[in-house]
Amino acid sequence: MSKSTLALIAAGSAVAGASLTALIFSSRPQKVTSVPVPAYPSPPPQPVSAPVSAPLPTPSLTQSPVNPSGVLKYGLTPPIADVNITPSHTSAYNRQTRNPHWVAEHFTPQSLAQHNATRRNSVFHEDVNVPPIFRAKLSDYFRSGYDRGHQVPAADAKWSQEAMDSTFVLSNMCPQVGDGFNRDYWAHFEEFCRTLTKHYPSVRVVTGPLYLPKQYPDGKWRVSYEVVGSPPNVAVPTHFYKVIYGEEAFNSPTGRVALAAFVLPNTEIPNSKSLKDFEVPLEAVERASGLTFADKLPIQRRKRLCTEVNCEILVREFDKTRQQGSALDVGQRNVGQIAQEARKW
Amino acid sequence: MSKSTLALIAAGSAVAGASLTALIFSSRPQKVTSVPVPAYPSPPPQPVSAPVSAPLPTPSLTQSPVNPSGVLKYGLTPPIADVNITPSHTSAYNRQTRNPHWVAEHFTPQSLAQHNATRRNSVFHEDVNVPPIFRAKLSDYFRSGYDRGHQVPAADAKWSQEAMDSTFVLSNMCPQVGDGFNRDYWAHFEEFCRTLTKHYPSVRVVTGPLYLPKQYPDGKWRVSYEVVGSPPNVAVPTHFYKVIYGEEAFNSPTGRVALAAFVLPNTEIPNSKSLKDFEVPLEAVERASGLTFADKLPIQRRKRLCTEVNCEILVREFDKTRQQGSALDVGQRNVGQIAQEARKW
Repeated sequence: MSKSTLALIAAGSAVAGASLTALIFSSRPQKVTSVPVPAYPSPPPQPVSAPVSAPLPTPSLTQSPVNPSGVLKYGLTPPIADVNITPSHTSAYNRQTRNPHWVAEHFTPQSLAQHNATRRNSVFHEDVNVPPIFRAKLSDYFRSGYDRGHQVPAADAKWSQEAMDSTFVLSNMCPQVGDGFNRDYWAHFEEFCRTLTKHYPSVRVVTGPLYLPKQYPDGKWRVSYEVVGSPPNVAVPTHFYKVIYGEEAFNSPTGRVALAAFVLPNTEIPNSKSLKDFEVPLEAVERASGLTFADKLPIQRRKRLCTEVNCEILVREFDKTRQQGSALDVGQRNVGQIAQEARKW
Repeated sequence: MSKSTLALIAAGSAVAGASLTALIFSSRPQKVTSVPVPAYPSPPPQPVSAPVSAPLPTPSLTQSPVNPSGVLKYGLTPPIADVNITPSHTSAYNRQTRNPHWVAEHFTPQSLAQHNATRRNSVFHEDVNVPPIFRAKLSDYFRSGYDRGHQVPAADAKWSQEAMDSTFVLSNMCPQVGDGFNRDYWAHFEEFCRTLTKHYPSVRVVTGPLYLPKQYPDGKWRVSYEVVGSPPNVAVPTHFYKVIYGEEAFNSPTGRVALAAFVLPNTEIPNSKSLKDFEVPLEAVERASGLTFADKLPIQRRKRLCTEVNCEILVREFDKTRQQGSALDVGQRNVGQIAQEARKW
């Protein structure tokens, strides 16, 4: 460990303060603030930080000689999940892994039918709303061996060039294995999601990374994942999840919702593999991610998506002959262009 | 991957809703709510969730055919860091690792001088305010090979039995290597922190786990850590940090603050090792943890603690002959009792 200097310590705080936030103390236990649903977008989307209401003891001066919460005055907070609301997606960013916690999207038969955009000119870009010391950088992916893998795919946002461009922000990316995964099975899985609009007038998908343990020969369970960048900065997830909500009705407070959750390993997957093999209970994703996805959706409104829909990927024969470049050099190229060549949409 | 059933999916949400929270949307960019400092404690401490203010675009209905944020109505939120405010400490819990993000404490010469408690009757207990599917359990530590390692040590809370008891909640614990670390070097480090009250009338310490990458022979950096429990549930940190604030004055809004940050590996450390070797720039802890610690502390109020104080551990000759039990069976015993025997306080 290198030793610190006062200058370094000072510098440490200078860069981190951008989107600082505060504990909001409420003496009304169990009060939960309703969630306003923002409509897109004017003025332009901005990042917001994770927020929360909170029951708390009513402050009262007592005989305690100490005040452990007093340190909050210096700027310590619960971890901030930079929330980014864009035309194509809403995301919550993990400052520790430099990947999103989740990225949420929404599409309909009508939105997918609009072809007003091309990814040809879309440019991968860093999320400047994340403080620099916590930001995933383009250079982290450069020659990393991994694709800059969209969590919300560009192809779901063809209804507007601005929307498509917004999918190229790095806070919508994770390092993904290219051949056999991002450009193959995972792409087919994304296509499967789009086809759900044949069954549901409104489809929501939440996508994100997982870091799962596996059992080693010594019987112990360990989480192990690569970190790319120099110095190492962005975690390479071991798995990815998608939670899918097939809404029977658009914007109905009472309509039923078909749910499905999938967890796929970040590795080459043969197209012969059934998507059903990757279906998991929603609770499994919740345990693994630490998130909740449907607490406010009453049980009587839920259905199981894979009993209504054949949960299998749809393999299109992409023009592989035009897919140049190995996974080792995709960082140098525009992965979007590669994918554009590979995927005939 | 096992396949889901509707019942399982339904169960997934039933258990997770306890401390649910909500996005608070504000159209006033940069507004930061002040942080009220709660005084201890009446009524009893309760957990709260991570909160945050947030700039957001002013909602306006436009031509967008989709509404990605609409999924929030089902209960998806940025990750919730269960905040627990107790007499001895305030903590923020990580639902993914089942360890805290951080645990904050405060002590003074006066608080340490009060000896009104014994850990003999303190009992390790689960944090019932964390939803069950995200909770660290006593059984996870049982025969795990690791100590239930206090982040805020019991010995800092002798001023009240209630305060000391509150340090035994599992949300104040991480799996720590016992021999050579938790019961040795780490304990000496905790003792060093207490001695800082000779120099400062008020001392704050924030402690927590890290999961750091290391470089492997293939040149790649990987994070690798064990997960204990059956099924695996609680991550075993690779390192621990402490950020120390030596306050020149108690409760002064202008007094200077001596800062130091340390990162120690979760492994046996010989007592001959200098504590200075583990001092790091505060920014290093911030990068590794994704947290910020001193954003609101102006540079002109900062000093470097280790230029004022000799940053070395204080080794007491503990009565090792009474320290029974290997690291392999501490899960079965009361680690507090072991430590009580070992540490002559």
